Amino acid sequence: MGARLFGWGTESGALTAAEANALLDRVRPWLAITAPVEEPTLGEIELAPPRLAAAGALTPWMRSDPLARATHTYGQAYRDLVRRLERHFAPAPDLVARPPDEGGIVATLEWADAHDAVVIAFGGGTSVVGGIEAPCDDPRPVISLDLEAVSGVVEVDTLSLAARCRAGTRGPDLEAALAPRGLTLRHFPQSFEFSTVGGWLATHAAGHYATGPTRIDDAVESLRAVTPRGILETGRHPSWGAGPDPRAWLLGSEGALGIFSEAWLRVVARPTFHARVVARFPDVGAGVAAARDVAQSGLRPANARLLDPLEAVVSGAGDGGSALLLLGCESADHPVDGEMARLRELAADHGASFDDGDRRPDARWRDAFVRAPYARDVLVRAGLLVETFETVTTWDQLNALRHAAIGTAEDAVAASGSSGGRVSWRLTHLYPDGAALYVTVLAPARPHDRVGQVDEVRTALLTTLAAVGAPVTHHHAVGRVHQPALAASGPALATALLAGAKSVLDPRGLLSPGVLLASSRPGPGRPDDLG
Amino acid sequence: MGARLFGWGTESGALTAAEANALLDRVRPWLAITAPVEEPTLGEIELAPPRLAAAGALTPWMRSDPLARATHTYGQAYRDLVRRLERHFAPAPDLVARPPDEGGIVATLEWADAHDAVVIAFGGGTSVVGGIEAPCDDPRPVISLDLEAVSGVVEVDTLSLAARCRAGTRGPDLEAALAPRGLTLRHFPQSFEFSTVGGWLATHAAGHYATGPTRIDDAVESLRAVTPRGILETGRHPSWGAGPDPRAWLLGSEGALGIFSEAWLRVVARPTFHARVVARFPDVGAGVAAARDVAQSGLRPANARLLDPLEAVVSGAGDGGSALLLLGCESADHPVDGEMARLRELAADHGASFDDGDRRPDARWRDAFVRAPYARDVLVRAGLLVETFETVTTWDQLNALRHAAIGTAEDAVAASGSSGGRVSWRLTHLYPDGAALYVTVLAPARPHDRVGQVDEVRTALLTTLAAVGAPVTHHHAVGRVHQPALAASGPALATALLAGAKSVLDPRGLLSPGVLLASSRPGPGRPDDLG
Repeated sequence: MGARLFGWGTESGALTAAEANALLDRVRPWLAITAPVEEPTLGEIELAPPRLAAAGALTPWMRSDPLARATHTYGQAYRDLVRRLERHFAPAPDLVARPPDEGGIVATLEWADAHDAVVIAFGGGTSVVGGIEAPCDDPRPVISLDLEAVSGVVEVDTLSLAARCRAGTRGPDLEAALAPRGLTLRHFPQSFEFSTVGGWLATHAAGHYATGPTRIDDAVESLRAVTPRGILETGRHPSWGAGPDPRAWLLGSEGALGIFSEAWLRVVARPTFHARVVARFPDVGAGVAAARDVAQSGLRPANARLLDPLEAVVSGAGDGGSALLLLGCESADHPVDGEMARLRELAADHGASFDDGDRRPDARWRDAFVRAPYARDVLVRAGLLVETFETVTTWDQLNALRHAAIGTAEDAVAASGSSGGRVSWRLTHLYPDGAALYVTVLAPARPHDRVGQVDEVRTALLTTLAAVGAPVTHHHAVGRVHQPALAASGPALATALLAGAKSVLDPRGLLSPGVLLASSRPGPGRPDDLG
Repeated sequence: MGARLFGWGTESGALTAAEANALLDRVRPWLAITAPVEEPTLGEIELAPPRLAAAGALTPWMRSDPLARATHTYGQAYRDLVRRLERHFAPAPDLVARPPDEGGIVATLEWADAHDAVVIAFGGGTSVVGGIEAPCDDPRPVISLDLEAVSGVVEVDTLSLAARCRAGTRGPDLEAALAPRGLTLRHFPQSFEFSTVGGWLATHAAGHYATGPTRIDDAVESLRAVTPRGILETGRHPSWGAGPDPRAWLLGSEGALGIFSEAWLRVVARPTFHARVVARFPDVGAGVAAARDVAQSGLRPANARLLDPLEAVVSGAGDGGSALLLLGCESADHPVDGEMARLRELAADHGASFDDGDRRPDARWRDAFVRAPYARDVLVRAGLLVETFETVTTWDQLNALRHAAIGTAEDAVAASGSSGGRVSWRLTHLYPDGAALYVTVLAPARPHDRVGQVDEVRTALLTTLAAVGAPVTHHHAVGRVHQPALAASGPALATALLAGAKSVLDPRGLLSPGVLLASSRPGPGRPDDLG
């Protein structure tokens, strides 16, 4: 990433003109679309002169040219896409640093500190919550610290099944390094092709695995991060018993406490046994109940997600008449037929029917999942609002919350002056005690105030979530977008703890101000001032 | 607990005179034992007058009588047993508070703050690391805060499979409350009968489950703790994605950051399918390799621990010629015969033989495990040093570390002037990337300096562990005993983070000074002073 002025991933991955037209033809009957807005070109983008110039040893890997700055301005939220299309690149960083190694990260932080600049870590550039955007309320110059060159799998412990991975390593490169040894991380977030180890660690990334070890957190053996106070390395401990686990202080810290340089991650043998099935539930509630039974069975299918009928039809996996429960088992050690047979029984107990032998629903869904960000580019250019929201809640609240969330989103879209909007949902991750609810909104955008519109929908949804104590995010992270809601709804002492950690590791507030915590620069004052 | 002046658990649970004599007869051939020291009586114990007197609303549940103070002086480390036998009760708290509810915890902290006293949380009194002992270097009066009355399972969510448990709830009471609903926590540390939910949470307790979800941490859905800065409650989230997980700041905080009042814990249906086997390995290294294969198989046996030949014979489970791998599977959902068959294959691949149908080795080991603390009381009274040490390391280091640890312990015992000592080991918890190594030392005590002797052995062992980066503890916690080694070997910035958290939640240093962190009272100074 970081290479395109607009659009997900790579140009070669984007929808062809024929695919884009076919997509728009499918949407046109029920949503008003406009002629596609042209993508911005470099010449159209106006940037203020950089407030800093690289100097000294850092010069070879610091850039301040418009292309580097424009491609490090935003992530991949709907609001990011919209502002790109509006040729609005005001938050562009002054400099882009691409250090060659961990020493370069240290040097960048020292240089930034000496020049009173802030530093924003940039991995794959795929944040959907404003996690890599410069603060608009901080007067300091901004350095985007691109970890691209600090990459590679530098050591593999085949006895302990763990790999030492540099933070800038992207998913495919990581897997390519592990494959010759018969190993794999099995961590496949939607951004897999472009996002990085460091980005995953910084955002509690959750992957394709939908039960059991789903988060990158579950794979972490040891962390190493550069902070303005020095390097924090935890050591390789398969389990932590000596006081509060410092790994948990860094996981999900979104670049605000330190910059990951590398990590030891647990890997597994590449699976050789597989089984998949798609269970159909005309009764959506029965599908939810089946998902719960699966999550509480003690079996841990590698894939287990529930698509509502609309989500199923949009992805091409279903006909719109049923919810679909996608189930997959895998193992490198033993056959999984018995496990799959029991999962089918659990689904059948709730009235499921199965498309045996038909791999198309499953394959279609996965294809749609991987290509969804590319499709979104087309839809946004055609004047549609496309945004997703997600949270997690316990099973006892889940049905009430999904009804409330869907209703809230539909009402908020209508109240924004948009008609014909559709809200779909799925359960992306199942836990024994609850599930992650993922909501997708597709509606005509409000011309001339597209950012305001999505902010209205988000505010309405977050209010509904807060009313039942559901968090602002399950795996999209907090960033700048969710920070105010987190501050308002999260436990005050948790915010105070986080501010305390920031005052220890980043006392001068160099790192990603405004992410996770309000961007007021922490002073050297008493801890009491931090709450 | 808290009821006996000397000795584990309850009087009725202790070894009978006949059992004690039989135990001593088994040990006598190879270790010099002495006539048993008599247990202390209340009349023999001299305590300084309490420096505080209860007053106001707290009076009904505050005690300062010698029995209450003496039974809240120590935990259950070898050094605690020895000091009891020496009639040395100098660290006795001035007051014992038994608040009836969470409001009483709040009131105790406020009262302590107003009287410049420190507060030490007391759950089951089973700490083996000096976690509940008053600091010797702090001039403030001491209140032992016994959570006994803040107990009970107050809510069960049978849909989400979670139970809201008060912190003072002991293992058997918790299970008794869940059983009528067909549920169980399946958390069985050795101290299960006496230790409490709050104590488990405060110490990263690890239970009988030896793979998969072994720690109480794995069962935590939500935490609620009283701190000097107010109540911190995290809310029920099956998974955490919104910034660093505040639950992780409290788990393992050993009473130094807050006092748990209650928690939502994940529970499971009571297992109905079971399978067990004991695999024998004449070649200890083959046993370790089999344990590793089991841990990396993707199967997650409920029990999987490896006993070295000496450990096996001491517990009555083996004949001393083989290492034993104890394996157990269970499920409430599906038969486990297939899982067990595969586990047997993995063991057989490393040359295991099996005692099919003979439940005695397994049952004997579990009986010995549960009764070990009672047996230790007898041995210590007879002049033996009996202490255990534990750590965790990756598989690539495990064999070297166990040889180094055993050798170090044997050398340290010999260097302490003790002859005939025996050092045994087991792997108590298996992870895909490593295992917990548990070392038991049994040797004649050095008369007149028994605490100094065990400190010498511990120091030698911790030095060996630190040399390879193995932590000071896997599941015994840090307390006062491991605090200096943790400070010396742990990451400095992790210590700074912990001190920062303490300055936020407990700015005046009321809570358990000297546990986890050096006992210097944190001042209101700049965060930079805390590192």
